[in-house]
Amino acid sequence: MKIAVFAGDGIGPEVTQQAVRVLQALDLPGLELVEGDVGGAAWRKHGHPLPEVTLEIARAADAILFGAVGDFACDHLERHLRPEQAILGLRKELGLFANLRPARVFPGLEGHSALRPEVAGAIDLLIVRELNGDVYFGDKGIRTLANGERQGWDLMAYSESEVRRIAHAGFKAARGRKGRLCSVDKANVLETSQVWRDVVTAVAAEYPDVELSHMYVDNAAMQLVKSPGQFDVVVTGNLFGDILSDQASMCVGSIGLLASASMAEGTKGLYEPIHGSAPDIAGQDKANPMATILSAAMLLRHSFGREAEAARIESAVAAALADGVFGGDLGGSYGTTAIGDAVLGKL
Amino acid sequence: MKIAVFAGDGIGPEVTQQAVRVLQALDLPGLELVEGDVGGAAWRKHGHPLPEVTLEIARAADAILFGAVGDFACDHLERHLRPEQAILGLRKELGLFANLRPARVFPGLEGHSALRPEVAGAIDLLIVRELNGDVYFGDKGIRTLANGERQGWDLMAYSESEVRRIAHAGFKAARGRKGRLCSVDKANVLETSQVWRDVVTAVAAEYPDVELSHMYVDNAAMQLVKSPGQFDVVVTGNLFGDILSDQASMCVGSIGLLASASMAEGTKGLYEPIHGSAPDIAGQDKANPMATILSAAMLLRHSFGREAEAARIESAVAAALADGVFGGDLGGSYGTTAIGDAVLGKL
Ligand SMILES: CC(C)[C@H](C(=O)O)[C@@H](O)C(=O)O
Ligand SMILES: CC(C)[C@H](C(=O)O)[C@@H](O)C(=O)O
Repeated sequence: MKIAVFAGDGIGPEVTQQAVRVLQALDLPGLELVEGDVGGAAWRKHGHPLPEVTLEIARAADAILFGAVGDFACDHLERHLRPEQAILGLRKELGLFANLRPARVFPGLEGHSALRPEVAGAIDLLIVRELNGDVYFGDKGIRTLANGERQGWDLMAYSESEVRRIAHAGFKAARGRKGRLCSVDKANVLETSQVWRDVVTAVAAEYPDVELSHMYVDNAAMQLVKSPGQFDVVVTGNLFGDILSDQASMCVGSIGLLASASMAEGTKGLYEPIHGSAPDIAGQDKANPMATILSAAMLLRHSFGREAEAARIESAVAAALADGVFGGDLGGSYGTTAIGDAVLGKL
Repeated sequence: MKIAVFAGDGIGPEVTQQAVRVLQALDLPGLELVEGDVGGAAWRKHGHPLPEVTLEIARAADAILFGAVGDFACDHLERHLRPEQAILGLRKELGLFANLRPARVFPGLEGHSALRPEVAGAIDLLIVRELNGDVYFGDKGIRTLANGERQGWDLMAYSESEVRRIAHAGFKAARGRKGRLCSVDKANVLETSQVWRDVVTAVAAEYPDVELSHMYVDNAAMQLVKSPGQFDVVVTGNLFGDILSDQASMCVGSIGLLASASMAEGTKGLYEPIHGSAPDIAGQDKANPMATILSAAMLLRHSFGREAEAARIESAVAAALADGVFGGDLGGSYGTTAIGDAVLGKL
C-alpha cells in the first residue's frame, strides 16, 4: 500500500500528521508512506506549487493523502504559481474526475449547525462533483477589446464523454445508498447544461433502480437550505459542485469534520479534508484533524477496499466526539495533538 | 407615471392583480397601467415569449411590474422560445444591468427560516447582481468535436466597463446602508474574476467611506449559511448572483415575501417577486401576493422617488403579517385575494 502524503500549507502539516499516526496504528500490511511538497511550501523549495518530483510521487502511489494548500505570502504570484494550482494540477494530471463529498451530521452535533437541529439532523447526502472539466479547465485569458478595454474570459464546456463518466459515478453512488440521484445544472441558460442534461438522462436508462431528478442550480442552493434532507446523491459540474458542496458542508455545521475523495478511473484517489489551510491558526495546535483522519478512512475504503479499517477509524472519531472531544471549530478546547490522541485511544 | 404590467404565467396574473389593486388605492397622480404579454402566455398568443409589441410597451414605460414566467407546456420548445427568455430578453433589451435583492426577515418571522432564529434574525443584506453579462449572454452553442461527440459550450466574460458600472451600483448601495461591500468572485480559477476583482478594487478608491472585502464564491455560499448577519451589500456577477441570491432568500425563510428591482442607467427599472410561476398552484387563489406587492413598493421608490408611498405599502404588509395574515408559504390559510384585502385594509 503506497500512500503519498502531501501535507501542504498552513494547518496542512499538523492535521496530516495526526491522520498519519492513525494509519500507522492500524498495522496495515506493507504500508508505505512517501512525503511530497505541494502548495506554497513547494513553491518556496522548488519554485512551483506542484513540482515534477511531487507529480512523480503521486503517479507512483496508489493513493494520496492531501492536507491543504493556500498561503497569503503567495498572493502576489501569477495565478499559475499560486498554491491552489497544486490541487488543480493533481486533479488534471491524475485524471481525478469524480469528487465525492459526503455530508452528514454526527449524532449529537445537530446543535452545531446554523440550521435548526431538526433540519440539520435530516442531512445525509453525497455530492458527486465533476473535477476535470467545466470552466475550470477551458481556454481562458484576458484580452484587449477593440475599444481598448480589457476583458477577462473563460470557456465553459462539457463534452458527452466527460458528462457520461461522472453520470455513471453518480448513478453508482446512488445505487449504493438510497437510490435517488439529483442532477444539478442551469439548462435554462447554458448550452453546456443542455448537453449535461441530455447525457445524464440517457445514462439513466442503465440504472432503472435509481430515481433521477433534475434541478436548476439556483433552486438547488435554495433547497439545500430549506430542506437538505430531501437529497440523497447530487451529481453536478465542477463549478456548481464547488459552490454547492461547500454550502452543504456548512449546513452540517462542522467543516472541521468533513472528508472528501477525488477518484480517477479505477481505485486511484486523492483524499483531503474539505477545509482550507487556515494560515491564521497554523502551527498553533488549534486545528481539528478529524476531517483529515476521516479522509484517511475514505482512502482505505475507496482505494484499498479496506472497509473494516475504514469503519474502525470512523467509529473511533464518533466515539471521541461522543466523549466531548471537541476542537475549537465545535466550541471545544481540544488541540490538534490531543484530538489525535483521543482518536487513537478509541481505535 | 407610466407602468407596464407584465403578469406572465402560472401564479403571475393573480399575484400581480393584488399589487395593481394596491397601486390603484394610493391615488398616485397620472398613474397609467399598460398590460403586456410575456412568457408562455405570450408564446401562445404571439408565438414568442417576448413579442415586439411587448417590448414596445416596455420601452415606452417608466417602469415595469413583472409577475413570473415559466410554463411546463413550453418545456418541449427550443430554448429561445421558452418563457424564461422573456425575462432574459427584457434585461438585455432594456439594459437592466443591476439586480437589487434585499433579504431581511420580517419581525416575528424568524421562526420560519430553516436557519436557527438567532442566525436568521441577524440577516439584513442586499445582493447586487450584474444582469447583462457573464456566461448568460456570451457566445454559446453545441458543437461536434473531431471524435464525433457533442460538446456544449458557453463563453463567460466580463469587460472592465461592465464590471465598473455594477461596482458603482454596489458601492452606492453600501453607502446608503451600513457602508460595507463584499465582492464575490472565483479569482483563484477564473480570468473573468481577475478582471472583476481588479476593477472593483480600482473603483473602491472613489468610495473611501465604504469598506470593501473580497470573497470566493464557494466561501460566500458557506458564510451565507454560517453567519449571514456578517453581510451588508454583496456585489457579484450574473451567475454567482443567481445562485447566492436564491440561497440568501431561502435563509430568510419566506420566498413569498421577497421583492427585487432590476435597474438600467437612470431610473428605469423592472420589479418582480423573486419567486417563480409555481404552475402547480396557479389559479387556485393560493399564492402569496406579498412579494409582488413589495415589488410595487420598490418600483415607487426606485423609479419614481416616491419614498412615502413605498414606505406606506411596506408598513401595510408588515402590519398584516403582525396580524397573522399568513399565506400557505408561511403555513397559514390566507388566500391570494384575502391577503390583498388585508394589505389594502392596512394602507
Ligand atoms: C482551491 C480551489 C481551486 C478549489 C476549487 O475551486 O476546486 C477548492 O475550492 C475546492 O473546492 O477544492
Ligand atoms: C429564469 C432564469 C433564467 C432566471 C435567471 O437565471 O436569471 C431566474 O433564475 C432569476 O434569477 O431571475
